[in-house]
Amino acid sequence: MEDLKSIIRNIPDFPKKGILFKDITTLLADAKSFQRMVDLLSHRYVGEKIDKVVGVEARGFIIGAALAYKLGAGIVLVRKPGKLPSETFKKTYDLEYGTDTLEIHTDAIKKGERILIADDLLATGGTMGAVVDMVKELGGEIVECCFMAELEFLDGKKKLPEGKCFSLLKF
Amino acid sequence: MEDLKSIIRNIPDFPKKGILFKDITTLLADAKSFQRMVDLLSHRYVGEKIDKVVGVEARGFIIGAALAYKLGAGIVLVRKPGKLPSETFKKTYDLEYGTDTLEIHTDAIKKGERILIADDLLATGGTMGAVVDMVKELGGEIVECCFMAELEFLDGKKKLPEGKCFSLLKF
Repeated sequence: MEDLKSIIRNIPDFPKKGILFKDITTLLADAKSFQRMVDLLSHRYVGEKIDKVVGVEARGFIIGAALAYKLGAGIVLVRKPGKLPSETFKKTYDLEYGTDTLEIHTDAIKKGERILIADDLLATGGTMGAVVDMVKELGGEIVECCFMAELEFLDGKKKLPEGKCFSLLKF
Repeated sequence: MEDLKSIIRNIPDFPKKGILFKDITTLLADAKSFQRMVDLLSHRYVGEKIDKVVGVEARGFIIGAALAYKLGAGIVLVRKPGKLPSETFKKTYDLEYGTDTLEIHTDAIKKGERILIADDLLATGGTMGAVVDMVKELGGEIVECCFMAELEFLDGKKKLPEGKCFSLLKF
């Protein structure tokens, strides 16, 4: 896994001073690394009968779509406000400063469907915690929340259902 | 192809009055339709030695990532301003009212790499025209611009390199 970790680029002071940003675009752009990342993640869910993968705007769409395709599942979008055109369920959640809101189409998930939630990076877990609530509200059965990478020192796992969190790469 | 077309939902008056919005989320969420759409699009490029697929934020990430995975290519992101953390090339282009700007990492594409550009919908072609310019600026060789769907009456093709535009579904 070290080869996948080392291809992720560190960008100091982005988006603000003092933050060392994990730039995953270098991994995504490398064909072999991208393929291997998707294969390793999806392999975990073969036989899990995933009905739908939920991808979180915007980078979660990338991981989510590739996983959905590989697993033969549909892909459901969680988006920023005003982007989804039909009836939505909205969830507002706390950030370090202020709040943020996400939306999902109310008819995107049917009661009892087996759902894999996917995002690129688990940091504080605030966003993913909100997405978990949204999927539950629509009656989805959460198989797991999966991430390409995790910043372990931020302990985002504690905001997610116990035992339902998997990260491929840990920093 | 009619089954794929008919699963796309029409939303009247979104994002503003008088526009009949093509809501592709219903196709994406349907496992069989999503799979078939990706298979049909990617089949066209088997043997074309695509090095990288360029996906345009945000829905283009979905199509782009699935195609890149299937074709064994990397995925490169074209994003809204301020989202990409390393050095970028910026392109500002005209919209119906005002302008918009997109960015790409300057090191995301190497000279001579064979590039497939992917997005969900071809409308007026303004965005895709700008992306074509960005890829050329970085030295990429454009194999084709491909779309899940096209609004033919808007004639967006005329803003793209001749003979290098393919849409799976036409409205």
